Amino acid sequence: MKYRIGIDLGGTNIAGGLVDENFKIVAKASVPTVVTEGPEKIVEDISSLCSKLCEDFGLKLSEVASIGIASPGIANHFTGAVEYSCNLPMRKFPISELVSEKTGVSHVFVENDANAAAWGEAVAGAAKGSSNSVMITLGTGVGGGIIIDNKVYSGFNCAGGELGHIVIEHNGRQCGCGRKGCWEAYSSATALINMTKEKIEECKANGRASVMLDAPKVSGRTAFDAMRAGDEAGKEVVDMYLDYLACGLANIINIFQPEIITIGGGVSNEGDSLVEALLPRVRAEQYGGGLVDLTEVKIATLKNDAGIIGGAVLGLNLDK
Amino acid sequence: MKYRIGIDLGGTNIAGGLVDENFKIVAKASVPTVVTEGPEKIVEDISSLCSKLCEDFGLKLSEVASIGIASPGIANHFTGAVEYSCNLPMRKFPISELVSEKTGVSHVFVENDANAAAWGEAVAGAAKGSSNSVMITLGTGVGGGIIIDNKVYSGFNCAGGELGHIVIEHNGRQCGCGRKGCWEAYSSATALINMTKEKIEECKANGRASVMLDAPKVSGRTAFDAMRAGDEAGKEVVDMYLDYLACGLANIINIFQPEIITIGGGVSNEGDSLVEALLPRVRAEQYGGGLVDLTEVKIATLKNDAGIIGGAVLGLNLDK
Repeated sequence: MKYRIGIDLGGTNIAGGLVDENFKIVAKASVPTVVTEGPEKIVEDISSLCSKLCEDFGLKLSEVASIGIASPGIANHFTGAVEYSCNLPMRKFPISELVSEKTGVSHVFVENDANAAAWGEAVAGAAKGSSNSVMITLGTGVGGGIIIDNKVYSGFNCAGGELGHIVIEHNGRQCGCGRKGCWEAYSSATALINMTKEKIEECKANGRASVMLDAPKVSGRTAFDAMRAGDEAGKEVVDMYLDYLACGLANIINIFQPEIITIGGGVSNEGDSLVEALLPRVRAEQYGGGLVDLTEVKIATLKNDAGIIGGAVLGLNLDK
Repeated sequence: MKYRIGIDLGGTNIAGGLVDENFKIVAKASVPTVVTEGPEKIVEDISSLCSKLCEDFGLKLSEVASIGIASPGIANHFTGAVEYSCNLPMRKFPISELVSEKTGVSHVFVENDANAAAWGEAVAGAAKGSSNSVMITLGTGVGGGIIIDNKVYSGFNCAGGELGHIVIEHNGRQCGCGRKGCWEAYSSATALINMTKEKIEECKANGRASVMLDAPKVSGRTAFDAMRAGDEAGKEVVDMYLDYLACGLANIINIFQPEIITIGGGVSNEGDSLVEALLPRVRAEQYGGGLVDLTEVKIATLKNDAGIIGGAVLGLNLDK
């Protein structure tokens, strides 16, 4: 049995997992991300984490086939460097090379976290068996990962796949990236929470009844739960949210016509009912509908392990 | 010297060219497209055109290395069939196979015309030397062609690359595809003409002076010419048009980060001054600007020969 390590490098925690050939995590551990002591400290902590995972499972670090790091920001999979991340103290930092030196594992890879998650879903998750898929992550932002011909696609400079930063409403809501009207500003969990809060304020101002007025804390579930309880205002929020989400998904289909789109991130916890509500709206808008085979839309399955498994399988070439 | 034939199959004319290894058209001819006598008649006319091109140049048809057909609609490059076209009487029609039978040339390929043009620019035009480019055609509609790893990318069903049908204005202007707010509805030559006409009407209604009021016929050049003549209303149209065009181009960069974007179609006749006016707007909106190498934006160079040359080079594998 061959084992690989996947590292989910986040701004708060570094999570690591030892993954077997069946994509099962056989050992798991994490440490807080120390962002104040320079990038070398992060390399040290990743390397120690790798040692610990192997110890816990009873494997020598030298027996690990590869280490793959899923990093926020722009990760250059050609050179193994993190070009830039707003959450980590890294700028053109050769993380793969340094982790390789420190661990003695010769195959160390780095990839943007959303891309790694998409690759994880393609290898071991909801898009398994397809060589051509796109993953959308609906969380704090809207992340994108593109798999073409069994490889992550991110452009000549590794900065592509920013599918959340497609403008869908010209001069619309302000996005964190500086543009106005990005898909992310309408379809992230954050955007859903904002829409829910705005509707609650509107209800208050108009003296309109809604179960959402009693929500102790507004989350991405508040409007969906309210809708399921028969609440009209809740349904209005969900309808608006689904409308923008479907608009962006139809864009993705018109651009890529991937075999499968997988949806991950917090909002995807709504499960298959989310896909059922989305599909008719997407089908009505997509190009060439009815004339060609249709893109499947599925909920991603790797959930919180997407970064670890996505990282671990970076060392895998499905064509070989 | 190896010769290939490129066929630009349009709804009005079938244009063909014999192309040498330096991508020079050494013979050229065309016939009207007969759409009323079924697809077999089109196969016959393409085959006769191929014979004529070879005769004109003094080559045997059997000496031709490949024939490539640039077709409107959804062309399946895996099977060689035109799946569907709204301008041609074809539905799941095995055009490559039939042209091969008729001509005796064993290598016959078919590709969507915008994709073929993008491949032509990548092999022999403004994106030459790059393995990763995107072409945008600003004509009656907005066409898109995506080149990844020296291959046309059009998704698992060959219907992708419909970059004109990315919604950039949710619930915006009606698009011919059925959606509202597509990039095509703002950035095609048709859209530019519509915006110009609307501004002329506005000037008339408000008694505002503009040289555009004297235009004998409104074209895609009217507003640009007026702007160059110092006309304020003309400048307003151009500014609005450039704003939408830049919005869509920044989307393309955020998605693909291609090495090069080439711009073709009627509007591209504005030339390098169009690129100069666009670039600052695009740079201001693109993701990761300043942190990574930047996508070049260039005017396409093959012009009206894009279909012929793009078709001819379909038989070419740059990796070999």
